[in-house]
Amino acid sequence: MAEDEQTKQAKTLKQRVWEIIFEAETPAGKLFDIVLLCFIGMSVLAVMLETVAEFKDKYSSELLFVEWFFTIMFSAEYLLRLWCSRKPLRYATSFFGVVDLLSCLPTYITLFLAGTSGFAVVRVLRLLRMFRVLKMAHHVRGAHVIMQGLVRSRAKITVFFFAILMFAVIAGTVMYYIEGNVEGTSFTSIPMSIYYAIVSITTVGYGDVVVQTNLGIFVTTIMILTGYAVIAVPTGIVTTELMRGKDNESDHTTDACPSCGAHGHLADAVYCRRCGDRLDHD
Amino acid sequence: MAEDEQTKQAKTLKQRVWEIIFEAETPAGKLFDIVLLCFIGMSVLAVMLETVAEFKDKYSSELLFVEWFFTIMFSAEYLLRLWCSRKPLRYATSFFGVVDLLSCLPTYITLFLAGTSGFAVVRVLRLLRMFRVLKMAHHVRGAHVIMQGLVRSRAKITVFFFAILMFAVIAGTVMYYIEGNVEGTSFTSIPMSIYYAIVSITTVGYGDVVVQTNLGIFVTTIMILTGYAVIAVPTGIVTTELMRGKDNESDHTTDACPSCGAHGHLADAVYCRRCGDRLDHD
Amino acid sequence: MAEDEQTKQAKTLKQRVWEIIFEAETPAGKLFDIVLLCFIGMSVLAVMLETVAEFKDKYSSELLFVEWFFTIMFSAEYLLRLWCSRKPLRYATSFFGVVDLLSCLPTYITLFLAGTSGFAVVRVLRLLRMFRVLKMAHHVRGAHVIMQGLVRSRAKITVFFFAILMFAVIAGTVMYYIEGNVEGTSFTSIPMSIYYAIVSITTVGYGDVVVQTNLGIFVTTIMILTGYAVIAVPTGIVTTELMRGKDNESDHTTDACPSCGAHGHLADAVYCRRCGDRLDHD
Amino acid sequence: MAEDEQTKQAKTLKQRVWEIIFEAETPAGKLFDIVLLCFIGMSVLAVMLETVAEFKDKYSSELLFVEWFFTIMFSAEYLLRLWCSRKPLRYATSFFGVVDLLSCLPTYITLFLAGTSGFAVVRVLRLLRMFRVLKMAHHVRGAHVIMQGLVRSRAKITVFFFAILMFAVIAGTVMYYIEGNVEGTSFTSIPMSIYYAIVSITTVGYGDVVVQTNLGIFVTTIMILTGYAVIAVPTGIVTTELMRGKDNESDHTTDACPSCGAHGHLADAVYCRRCGDRLDHD
Repeated sequence: MAEDEQTKQAKTLKQRVWEIIFEAETPAGKLFDIVLLCFIGMSVLAVMLETVAEFKDKYSSELLFVEWFFTIMFSAEYLLRLWCSRKPLRYATSFFGVVDLLSCLPTYITLFLAGTSGFAVVRVLRLLRMFRVLKMAHHVRGAHVIMQGLVRSRAKITVFFFAILMFAVIAGTVMYYIEGNVEGTSFTSIPMSIYYAIVSITTVGYGDVVVQTNLGIFVTTIMILTGYAVIAVPTGIVTTELMRGKDNESDHTTDACPSCGAHGHLADAVYCRRCGDRLDHD
Repeated sequence: MAEDEQTKQAKTLKQRVWEIIFEAETPAGKLFDIVLLCFIGMSVLAVMLETVAEFKDKYSSELLFVEWFFTIMFSAEYLLRLWCSRKPLRYATSFFGVVDLLSCLPTYITLFLAGTSGFAVVRVLRLLRMFRVLKMAHHVRGAHVIMQGLVRSRAKITVFFFAILMFAVIAGTVMYYIEGNVEGTSFTSIPMSIYYAIVSITTVGYGDVVVQTNLGIFVTTIMILTGYAVIAVPTGIVTTELMRGKDNESDHTTDACPSCGAHGHLADAVYCRRCGDRLDHD
Repeated sequence: MAEDEQTKQAKTLKQRVWEIIFEAETPAGKLFDIVLLCFIGMSVLAVMLETVAEFKDKYSSELLFVEWFFTIMFSAEYLLRLWCSRKPLRYATSFFGVVDLLSCLPTYITLFLAGTSGFAVVRVLRLLRMFRVLKMAHHVRGAHVIMQGLVRSRAKITVFFFAILMFAVIAGTVMYYIEGNVEGTSFTSIPMSIYYAIVSITTVGYGDVVVQTNLGIFVTTIMILTGYAVIAVPTGIVTTELMRGKDNESDHTTDACPSCGAHGHLADAVYCRRCGDRLDHD
Repeated sequence: MAEDEQTKQAKTLKQRVWEIIFEAETPAGKLFDIVLLCFIGMSVLAVMLETVAEFKDKYSSELLFVEWFFTIMFSAEYLLRLWCSRKPLRYATSFFGVVDLLSCLPTYITLFLAGTSGFAVVRVLRLLRMFRVLKMAHHVRGAHVIMQGLVRSRAKITVFFFAILMFAVIAGTVMYYIEGNVEGTSFTSIPMSIYYAIVSITTVGYGDVVVQTNLGIFVTTIMILTGYAVIAVPTGIVTTELMRGKDNESDHTTDACPSCGAHGHLADAVYCRRCGDRLDHD
């Protein structure tokens, strides 16, 4: 009986922690979100500055301290999330579960590898910490609207992606035929020419590869104009797609699934659309 | 009695000045707007030309005269605006009140600092005068339609902004890993690589940082194509947002609030939506 | 009586010529349009090739012949248009009347100036012939849909234009402050910095002016991302504008006004919307 | 009687092969599609890598083997398509029939030409194999939605294309007049200046041609801003076009016409809209 009481109380504690770290409706939950966002931002900034030679030389001990501070914070957050999930394994194997783990793991591994292992592995691990930025998506509200827009237009965006690629392959081959034999050309191979075509069609235009012949200028001009006229089509398709879905954008709750932590459920949802568990805490 | 008469007349003068400098419905008000716009344009042009070495050497005395002419004009305008506002403090602390003050203040301060102070301060003050261009927003009709469009899509634009940033951080890190160790690379640090990623995704493409390895070319190509496909989504979201709000765009008056000078009130508005004061002159 | 007959016949001839050169509904009118479009294209191409040194040296006599052939053709066309217009002066002073005149005049003037006049005047006259390309707008069907779209969104495009300009002026000034004192900088003056800001915000990105300092990179990144997010707004505004006007796009006739030659009249129009004359031949 | 039976069985075999290689509704048909897409991708990749000098030197024998493997595969596919079409000639003369033939023919021709013919012909034939990528359009579902969007907006896109071209011709001529006489200019001829104008207006901005004079910078700035404001119009037009057609996008079947192999028929179509033959297998 007493044990049952304790279990109940523990559950309430679990539930309270859950509300703070997974949801954002209570003041504590909002504060947690904001603090975490700042921590993510600062920790990513620290990893970035580590690669700037002059900064690293000057503040190397401060960077080390900051690194361990954030690693311990993110480890604590990860363990808390594991503990208060009803199905920890499901959270651990979800996208954000993996991201949360990757946010703290690399620092520990580099500790064990220090000195013994090669430079390449350490370098990957160091850079992996940059992926902490993905934790942000967890906490930025409305991100799922963008995601839904992209997912809904997925099929058409894919087709468009391939259409551009096919166009670029053909245009690149033609450019390679025209410019490939000119002395001092930058069109040294078809992949290079396709790179040029894509950089041109998408209006990026670095200018590291440029045409030299008159025919090349003419073909480039036609290619750019065609790409420019074509850009309107995918934009229009996505707008149409988004407009059609406008009415379907019902109210989403900020509640997360207690089992796997998935966000973006509809207000009237009873079961998680990702793992099928009940959304309410019993 | 006589004093009361005088007060009334003064009030009518105040009101008439108000109508001329804050509103644009009377012929005098329209003329004032046009003249002021020309003055702003010419004064900004003068500050710009001051920084062109060859021009400054040739016309330094003319530029000095022009500078003082516009400073006195803008000072007079600022004092008039203060005088005819019903709540001068509110105008003075509003966005345009500060901009109007900043339009004339720097010239006076440089006068007192001449010779005594360092170059850096004078330089900031000189350049601050460029912000006069913001006075224009005051007088360009329809600017609030763009502003409303932006404000209404604020949340989604912010999410999009962060989504691009996150994408650029990840892509930049990957590019740094690929290109960072190549000899003579421009990818000297992660911030530099993120700069490259943003310049590429947004299709700016300066070409000051370019890839050298084959893998780098491949990843850049994928990155650009993804960015290109993604550009359609925010465009579509804003269009949807604007279309939804189409019916709400009721008629706006060109009248300004007599207390704080805020523009863009609805035709049937009785109270200012910024400071809550009555909009009519009693 | 006989004279009256003759006048009537002349009028019918005039009308028939009118139908051929101003309208495009008869087979002869369509043929005339196509031939003229080819002539314009070829004549513009000839002027273009004249500026290519290697081509000019090789084919200078051929280019001279081609030039005179097209000049005489366009002169004949201009005279015919003048002759068959009911109010020749109105046609002559209309936009396309001036363009048509400018298409043949420069060649005659260079003939008289040959040898006597300076190089600069001849050069302007030579290049003026490139404006023949504007004659095309006369004959490209559907051009008025684009024009109407632009005209209808005129006010909002203007505001957007100024908003971008104001943003660029502020951003350029800030960049000048950051980069202006660095050695070997390209930010030599504020106009140069504003050029950089506009080239960046509009995603053109030539790369002739690039930042050197870390702070400059950071500010540029923010500036580009803001510009990129903002691009969606004018696009959305124009789409909304075009959609609203969709129903109003009634059928336009291909008939031109017999007095001034204006195109794009509605099917039920009785009077020219430009000059107010009756549209039918009496 | 037995022969009739055999014919019937043969027909069923033909029909079964047809279902596999032309349609994608049966599991076998889907598998065939996926395998073919992989083969196309790999074969195009092989041709691309052949032009990379270091790769070609290392793996020249492997590339030769791969080339013949894919050529034989595509030949078999082409012959099967010919065999199971009810009207082989119609398939052979259709767009995809020609593409399918071009996918295998060049390899055979180079075999016969080896040693005897000049380099130029062999080079064209080698590069022609890149057009295999067009076979992909055959198999990418939804490609016809993009195509229909483009076709439906065809007239307006053409007008827009010409409008941009006319604008670029005028702007390029003006730039040539301004920059053409400066020493060390890149604006060596009008075609070069038009290339600059198009690269600028479409926001590509390679940076290989850049202005040197102050006036040139000013005109470029105006040109870019105008182009930037104008981009919204075609986008809006296409969106409007696509939205109008939204309701017409009825369900399309994945069935292909048994005579000519055309795709994208409506669910209730009885006759092919391309060749007029019945769509069902009798």
